[in-house]
Amino acid sequence: MQFMIDAPLDMHLHLREAEMLQLVAPLSAAHFAGAVVMPNLLSPVDSHQKLSAYRQAVVDAAGDDSFTPYMTLFFRPYTKTELETVRDHIIGIKLYPAGITTQSEAGVADFEAIGETVALMEELQIPLLVHGESNGFVMEREREFLAIYRWLAKSFPRLPIIMEHITTADTLDILDEFPNVAATVTLHHLMLTLDDVVGGLMQPHLFCKPIAKTPHDLQALQTAVFSGHPRILFGSDSAPHPTHAKECCGCAAGVFSAPVALPKLVELFAAEDRLDMLADFVTNNAQRFYGISPGPKTVHLQSKAWTVPQAYGTVRPFLAGEKIQWQVTAIEK
Amino acid sequence: MQFMIDAPLDMHLHLREAEMLQLVAPLSAAHFAGAVVMPNLLSPVDSHQKLSAYRQAVVDAAGDDSFTPYMTLFFRPYTKTELETVRDHIIGIKLYPAGITTQSEAGVADFEAIGETVALMEELQIPLLVHGESNGFVMEREREFLAIYRWLAKSFPRLPIIMEHITTADTLDILDEFPNVAATVTLHHLMLTLDDVVGGLMQPHLFCKPIAKTPHDLQALQTAVFSGHPRILFGSDSAPHPTHAKECCGCAAGVFSAPVALPKLVELFAAEDRLDMLADFVTNNAQRFYGISPGPKTVHLQSKAWTVPQAYGTVRPFLAGEKIQWQVTAIEK
Repeated sequence: MQFMIDAPLDMHLHLREAEMLQLVAPLSAAHFAGAVVMPNLLSPVDSHQKLSAYRQAVVDAAGDDSFTPYMTLFFRPYTKTELETVRDHIIGIKLYPAGITTQSEAGVADFEAIGETVALMEELQIPLLVHGESNGFVMEREREFLAIYRWLAKSFPRLPIIMEHITTADTLDILDEFPNVAATVTLHHLMLTLDDVVGGLMQPHLFCKPIAKTPHDLQALQTAVFSGHPRILFGSDSAPHPTHAKECCGCAAGVFSAPVALPKLVELFAAEDRLDMLADFVTNNAQRFYGISPGPKTVHLQSKAWTVPQAYGTVRPFLAGEKIQWQVTAIEK
Repeated sequence: MQFMIDAPLDMHLHLREAEMLQLVAPLSAAHFAGAVVMPNLLSPVDSHQKLSAYRQAVVDAAGDDSFTPYMTLFFRPYTKTELETVRDHIIGIKLYPAGITTQSEAGVADFEAIGETVALMEELQIPLLVHGESNGFVMEREREFLAIYRWLAKSFPRLPIIMEHITTADTLDILDEFPNVAATVTLHHLMLTLDDVVGGLMQPHLFCKPIAKTPHDLQALQTAVFSGHPRILFGSDSAPHPTHAKECCGCAAGVFSAPVALPKLVELFAAEDRLDMLADFVTNNAQRFYGISPGPKTVHLQSKAWTVPQAYGTVRPFLAGEKIQWQVTAIEK
């Protein structure tokens, strides 16, 4: 069996820096026409200068001009001049609550203080991408953040807001309440619950933030995605760490799914008999919500099993050692 | 400050076999007058012969005749003759649902089939110790098992039943419903929630079964223990694994708390200004419920800080590298 898809997009991607960037950027560029590149580097991408330098590093590392990096700024209070300067070079600004995940220490500690910058973003139509978790109990963090999503969506009704890597049934409700809100869903959150992480043996390579939730939440996400919700976008949140940082006392959070994401999504949608919906999830919804036109890049896949390698360089991928029933066989640019 | 306690007991302990037994048995014998020794060896302790051999191995490894190992059999269908033969050599029979934790594959798969043996145990007054978890979602496993606890307690009202290493607020309710039911609580479940395991970095050394639950559950356990519930017994569930089995892809479940349990309990009870309740928790309640008389062995402690070592032999202990404010300074036998 064959399947082809035009201009697939990964709307949430961590490419890191230096050697890790060299390793992982080509793997995303091989399958995707573009990706939203997260700004939480060791020194956050929070100026036009840093942004330009990082964009160039990403382009060089990807080495494939059929791949468009959609760059993001790290949220901090910005002036109107700063935003006007950077506006045409970014797809949006990513907001992290302070300390909530890898390299987010410079994030927002006081949400009452963000209104001014967010109002400017609304005025200039710069989308706001949000890591929506409180610092509460790990299974309730996303739910506890929903009040902030509602406040943002209501206070800034013309601001495009993206709830990143959502994981709970309750979060989906917000999509129906506010037309200016979209959400990304990862591959792993379409497949895992907390059981997969700590239900049998503990699995550091399935440990991510937000943590995978309950069977009820998983089913709600699957239903929303497979039924083709028009404001749910695929974003892998592929987040590489060297294996040694995952297999130690105190393992880093993040699943590296970039090299398996597209073939596995085809397998999942085929299994649900919903292959016709996949283009909406991995490109059309994102193009419409963000107003972007990636490509041309057509990816051809065949139903031909392959085994995911144990490692790409220093990084263990999601589904390492497992079989995936589809593989990418050709790219037209 | 000084504190002394007569005949402290650890009512739930894993001593393992061979080299691991040699390593860990003396550490429990150093602080406790006795311990309930779990039977989930690679080949479960499920016959009089295996029991005698294991008891002798434990006694030899402990090398301290002030330490009494209270032996358990692994639950399977037993005949009346078998139970009569073994009765005086065990403190009870430990029931594991099949596959629910380390080396429990030979456990109970069909609870409807256990009635005959349990009825014999009631007749012979052999306590039933239970690992109460379903095979459902990891945060709900104990709650889903409560119906079986209620069925057992109601169907066999003269059978002493011990709910082992309980972790949820709901489980505590059963203690009030049935006078024939007691519970053990571990040190780590008096201190941890899921946040400590996967809320920041992932912590393989805090991964255990049952998994640590919510802040609400933690508070309920603390309240019940510190208020001196008469049928809550200390059982460490100290469960050593070699470090290499904890820091790998797929980490084993178990916290090794034996060498820190007693000093840390003194610290916790002192911090709550409840030192007067500690003897109930670590010995009196167990002596009364099980009808045992350990000792003589008096343990003296002083409020003198020490740092928990990173390892005992091949095993990383609970609280490795942390300070504990009390230490054992003398033993009278």
